[in-house]
Amino acid sequence: MSLDSALARIDGDLDASLERLFDLLRIKSISTDPAFAQDCAQAARWLVAQLSGMGFAASLRETSGHPMVVAHAKAARADAPHVLFYGHYDVQPVDPLNLWESDPFAPRIVEEEGARRIVARGAADDKGQLMTFVEACRALLREGGLPCHVSVLFEGEEECGSSSLPAFLAANKDELRADVALVCDTNMWNRTTPAITAMLRGLVFEEVVVEAASRDLHSGLFGGAAINPIRVLARILADLHDASGAVALPGFYEGVRDLPPDVAAQWRALDFSESAFLGDVGLSVPAGEQGRSVLEQVWSRPTCEFNGVQGGYTGEGAKTVLPAQASAKVSFRLVGAQDPHRIVESFHAFVRARLPADCHARFISHGASAAISLPFDSAFLQKARVALTQEWGCEAVMAGGGGSIPVIGDFKRDLGMDSLMIGFGLDDDRIHSPNEKYEVSSYHKGTRSWARVLHALAR
Amino acid sequence: MSLDSALARIDGDLDASLERLFDLLRIKSISTDPAFAQDCAQAARWLVAQLSGMGFAASLRETSGHPMVVAHAKAARADAPHVLFYGHYDVQPVDPLNLWESDPFAPRIVEEEGARRIVARGAADDKGQLMTFVEACRALLREGGLPCHVSVLFEGEEECGSSSLPAFLAANKDELRADVALVCDTNMWNRTTPAITAMLRGLVFEEVVVEAASRDLHSGLFGGAAINPIRVLARILADLHDASGAVALPGFYEGVRDLPPDVAAQWRALDFSESAFLGDVGLSVPAGEQGRSVLEQVWSRPTCEFNGVQGGYTGEGAKTVLPAQASAKVSFRLVGAQDPHRIVESFHAFVRARLPADCHARFISHGASAAISLPFDSAFLQKARVALTQEWGCEAVMAGGGGSIPVIGDFKRDLGMDSLMIGFGLDDDRIHSPNEKYEVSSYHKGTRSWARVLHALAR
Repeated sequence: MSLDSALARIDGDLDASLERLFDLLRIKSISTDPAFAQDCAQAARWLVAQLSGMGFAASLRETSGHPMVVAHAKAARADAPHVLFYGHYDVQPVDPLNLWESDPFAPRIVEEEGARRIVARGAADDKGQLMTFVEACRALLREGGLPCHVSVLFEGEEECGSSSLPAFLAANKDELRADVALVCDTNMWNRTTPAITAMLRGLVFEEVVVEAASRDLHSGLFGGAAINPIRVLARILADLHDASGAVALPGFYEGVRDLPPDVAAQWRALDFSESAFLGDVGLSVPAGEQGRSVLEQVWSRPTCEFNGVQGGYTGEGAKTVLPAQASAKVSFRLVGAQDPHRIVESFHAFVRARLPADCHARFISHGASAAISLPFDSAFLQKARVALTQEWGCEAVMAGGGGSIPVIGDFKRDLGMDSLMIGFGLDDDRIHSPNEKYEVSSYHKGTRSWARVLHALAR
Repeated sequence: MSLDSALARIDGDLDASLERLFDLLRIKSISTDPAFAQDCAQAARWLVAQLSGMGFAASLRETSGHPMVVAHAKAARADAPHVLFYGHYDVQPVDPLNLWESDPFAPRIVEEEGARRIVARGAADDKGQLMTFVEACRALLREGGLPCHVSVLFEGEEECGSSSLPAFLAANKDELRADVALVCDTNMWNRTTPAITAMLRGLVFEEVVVEAASRDLHSGLFGGAAINPIRVLARILADLHDASGAVALPGFYEGVRDLPPDVAAQWRALDFSESAFLGDVGLSVPAGEQGRSVLEQVWSRPTCEFNGVQGGYTGEGAKTVLPAQASAKVSFRLVGAQDPHRIVESFHAFVRARLPADCHARFISHGASAAISLPFDSAFLQKARVALTQEWGCEAVMAGGGGSIPVIGDFKRDLGMDSLMIGFGLDDDRIHSPNEKYEVSSYHKGTRSWARVLHALAR
């Protein structure tokens, strides 16, 4: 059970390990689109086969949505701590497909900007990340065994609201409860500096459909007399922010507190360039709440974003239609003690208050989860920091996270378990975008990091 | 050249005439979508063949877009007046296809609400309407000849901006100039009362694309810091109307005058039910400018409507994307002396004034045409009214029209020709919508009406 021999095996096995990742990346496990349900099931079966082959007791568990993968393996020492590793095998849709430089499900290695990169949908989010842990376990098992008891939970609905997860956790509490959860779905501080994510924003994702006439109308015959749902929707969306960039939903900021002074000081001291962060994506001016730094805006402030809008004729050319309906996908990132369910209610009331005569609104909920904070004095956290420092040669940043990982809240609430969020993604990984990539160095040193972390946690 | 024998032939030939219309309706001549270019050409060839078979000198004329059909036939009397009939063989797209009760390009007769109806895309707009004139000519030619010299112009780009038409008219002025133009693309007052349309709104159709980041972003990683183009677009669209329902574009109402008192009085006396007009499509409250009747709103007032909006993820489920761009199709209906080109400029300036840092706007123009009014004292108009009264047994309404027929303006400006707009559509024909229909009575009595009108104009 030597760490050094496990690390050496990880180094020597890198090419084969990449081939295994590529096999997983080839599976089109887009969870939000029902057309890809069989692909999701295939990804789950592939993971069960891998884990079984390594010596885990692994099984596929059906849900009302996409299946879960659950696996267990014992440590060599009976009194070792027990960790639950969580990841997700589902991926985002690939549109707009025409902006991809190659097939999103034909993974390949490219050399660019002096780095080797794995390019494919899911390369970073989350297939590449979850495979760092799987491959670390593979090496440890070959070199004397695991230092911790390890359970694994992979879900297939993270990108579409995790609707099966709460019931599954509730029904399998005793099997899944561990001393600490490990989650690999976050980023490093930069290419050479690791990070442990200590705060995560929550997420409320709502879809609203504004309906008016019983059918599409001709805008020449009815325009000016019939209410236009795009106009109604535009007014609702425009009203959701005030002139200062703050969210105008009544009660939205209840439970939001400013950063503790010491954390604010730590963030100010980070070598973070607002202009580089925005410049990378063609922007220059922070667009959120005035008077907040970009790090605050994306790590510690709540937001309201519009993720999609649609109504009327959207094909090429002109069509003088006055549509019967228009819809928008609206998401809220939550921090602190903001209550997701009260925000859903406030949003519905906000929309209804702006519906003129003859209009009504339908709502489709795609998830509601609160924000999360990790206790800074946790022993597991301190041990993991040391392990990461040994691998990377510098201190791990205690970061905030803008994205949401609802399972972290479920683990805390339902299983009483804190989560260590350690990930090896980079800000420029283009997750959810065309040409998503994961650095080979993230994959390789990420795998090595998990071997070190598991050893450290067992000490 | 007896009118009675031509009318008798139209009656006896109705079934065969419907079969010919069905042949034309089966051709998928959707002009706005380049995928259907060959279908448009096929429709043009079909019309050339029909007209040639009837004795017209007919030809297909290529343009940079879809082809024109031009045909000529002489009257029996050399000193007869010369008319130019205009129609369009192109049709609107058929989406949303799932709302059609049958294939839009498989025409059929249905019996509903006590009437026989032809159901297909283009049944009313404009294939059914243009065929009423073709079939009237067919009967007249079989029964002694045409009472007027007849030229025919069919275009295939009416539904997508008529971009080839102005140059074609300019290049063929001498061939196409006639004493008066006849246009069949408007509605009757109701199922039993004909109408001549004396005013038509103009149309400016603009598409705006708001662009921000260089790629789609993850709303968790960038949300709150990166500008969201849907939010920018929503603000622009929301600002385009004020609280009273008026259009907020600077200078928009320049050239707009209130109705002359006599026309206003005639309209007030019409048996028009606002609640029935709106109730037919599931609405109840006029949504346009406050203090205006529905007839004013759709016939004599300018409007701004949103015909389509799109941005971000619009598939099923959730995707936490922060899109790189969002777009809207915006149309303005013009009246009186409103200048279409000044309105385009004002719209562009209005959008640009609302673009925050890092955003820019691209514009795509899909047409700009002024409003049209017909002189009420024209001799052709008075003769046509008498002919319609003889066919329908009641006085023809002198109507306004909400839709736009840009060619009317081109005829006046480029060929110095007034147009008689006589159509047999009904308000519930669902043009531009699923399940478009045309009443068999419109088709049959419309054909008879044209035979009478051509006789009346020659007197």
